[in-house]
Amino acid sequence: MKYAVKIEVSLKPGHINPEGETTTQLLIELGYNVKAIAVSKVYTVFLEASTKVEAETKAQEMCNRLLANPTKDNYSISIAESK
Amino acid sequence: MKYAVKIEVSLKPGHINPEGETTTQLLIELGYNVKAIAVSKVYTVFLEASTKVEAETKAQEMCNRLLANPTKDNYSISIAESK
Repeated sequence: MKYAVKIEVSLKPGHINPEGETTTQLLIELGYNVKAIAVSKVYTVFLEASTKVEAETKAQEMCNRLLANPTKDNYSISIAESK
Repeated sequence: MKYAVKIEVSLKPGHINPEGETTTQLLIELGYNVKAIAVSKVYTVFLEASTKVEAETKAQEMCNRLLANPTKDNYSISIAESK
């Protein structure tokens, strides 16, 4: 079966987030009342797996081996069947 | 009121996505049966607004003025009340 696995990788709390800080500053200069911005990345991975559980297990492996840095990143996984 | 506005910026279909292609290739080399990967960016913007509608209007303006490139990007907005 085909699955679309959505993996969101974000910085752990306490890590410096220069892109978010710069974007916050720019939006304040444009006149918006913005307090802070967190920036994260979403990988939508289209993969083949026999069950939803297998798809989730593979996605966790992918995060640990490539997509997320365990020192500084958190990740969350959500799974949908793909067309 | 404080709102947390989640803005997801992704490439329009048909645009070349080098990061997704490279990540796909790496995961295939690691032994995963991956067909394709779409990469998008999520800005979680913490802002002050008097109503949810105002927060959404402001978020759309931010996308049009700074966060998304109308030539190549799609964006979607979801809003939650913040603590």
